[in-house]
Amino acid sequence: MTRIRFHRQLDDLKERLLVMAGMAEQAIQRAVEAYRVRDLSLCDLVARSEASINSFEREIDQMALDLLAMEQPMAIDLRFILAVIKINADLERVGDQAVSISERVRDLHALPAVELPVDIPRMAALASSMVRRALQGFIEADAEVAQSVLAMDDSVDKLNDAAFFSLSAMIQEQPLYAPQALHALLIARNLERVGDHATNVAEDVIFWVRGADVRHHLSA
Amino acid sequence: MTRIRFHRQLDDLKERLLVMAGMAEQAIQRAVEAYRVRDLSLCDLVARSEASINSFEREIDQMALDLLAMEQPMAIDLRFILAVIKINADLERVGDQAVSISERVRDLHALPAVELPVDIPRMAALASSMVRRALQGFIEADAEVAQSVLAMDDSVDKLNDAAFFSLSAMIQEQPLYAPQALHALLIARNLERVGDHATNVAEDVIFWVRGADVRHHLSA
Repeated sequence: MTRIRFHRQLDDLKERLLVMAGMAEQAIQRAVEAYRVRDLSLCDLVARSEASINSFEREIDQMALDLLAMEQPMAIDLRFILAVIKINADLERVGDQAVSISERVRDLHALPAVELPVDIPRMAALASSMVRRALQGFIEADAEVAQSVLAMDDSVDKLNDAAFFSLSAMIQEQPLYAPQALHALLIARNLERVGDHATNVAEDVIFWVRGADVRHHLSA
Repeated sequence: MTRIRFHRQLDDLKERLLVMAGMAEQAIQRAVEAYRVRDLSLCDLVARSEASINSFEREIDQMALDLLAMEQPMAIDLRFILAVIKINADLERVGDQAVSISERVRDLHALPAVELPVDIPRMAALASSMVRRALQGFIEADAEVAQSVLAMDDSVDKLNDAAFFSLSAMIQEQPLYAPQALHALLIARNLERVGDHATNVAEDVIFWVRGADVRHHLSA
């Protein structure tokens, strides 16, 4: 395989990872929209997208594996391919979180609607913007953009802590609505996990770009 | 690098991953023991082990990267190295779950002790045995052993669903203890995630051994 062809394939790999990221982000958006408007048809869409996301994950992994097998890549390309493999796994798990949220929306739909003291759409917007920004760092090979994601994670964690206290207080006042509050708490946790995956992606981007492993240093 | 030396290094890599698995499992055990006996000194141990687990993860990744860079590995070795990289990431996140549990134990410790209708130690034993079995599949290069982990995941999910209902019912009867119940619910979720990571490890073992990607087929 010529060097030019090899680099074209690396570009292909990058393109596909971006499609994968778009699918994962869309799944989160739909699941949260399903929550907001109590629309189960959106849950169906999320459930259906899971299979596409999973098969896309396999395809990207296979491409990466083929590139590793066919040519002995240079250090920077090697790190790029490894970053793709790891980011791919994180994006697939973002999709899993969307499925998990949409299942909770179904459970909530079977219960009386009640006002919940937690701003799920806001948490989702923040977590999604983390995923987008981590991917922007990946597209632009910009470690600083990726690094800004790590700071955003604290905001998601804070919203999540606030959700714990407000839902806990609500339950004490209106114990009848405990199931609804517990579902909302778990959806908030799902979104916190999306933020964690975005953080992992950002760390992988930094590792690729800087060639140094900064994981656990920045968050310590 | 000679072929023999290359294979000795692969064995080294395997050994280190097993040490990593042991550290992650111990962290879970300590966090759950801290829960059981309300002992904050165990939480300190878990917090301290996080740094070791993180630096071990970096070391293993670097070894794997060096092996990929130095020699063009054969297909089976390539798949092995990639499996190690992915398993490594999952084990590090098992360690994160332990930290998360130990932080909830601290929160619980600040609240009045109360009987909670959820068998956390049993869930932990099941999740830990999944991790151990997935690693056994890895040591023995046995896809069937790894595959048995996938079935165990359903049991953890069922225990988790049961925890949701029993804790929800408890809160409705004793709303005063809502915070304790919510913490217990989130610890149950942490353990469910440990089971998810064990499932991921098992899938990576199957991928390495069989050379085929079975992810998402078995669980579909």
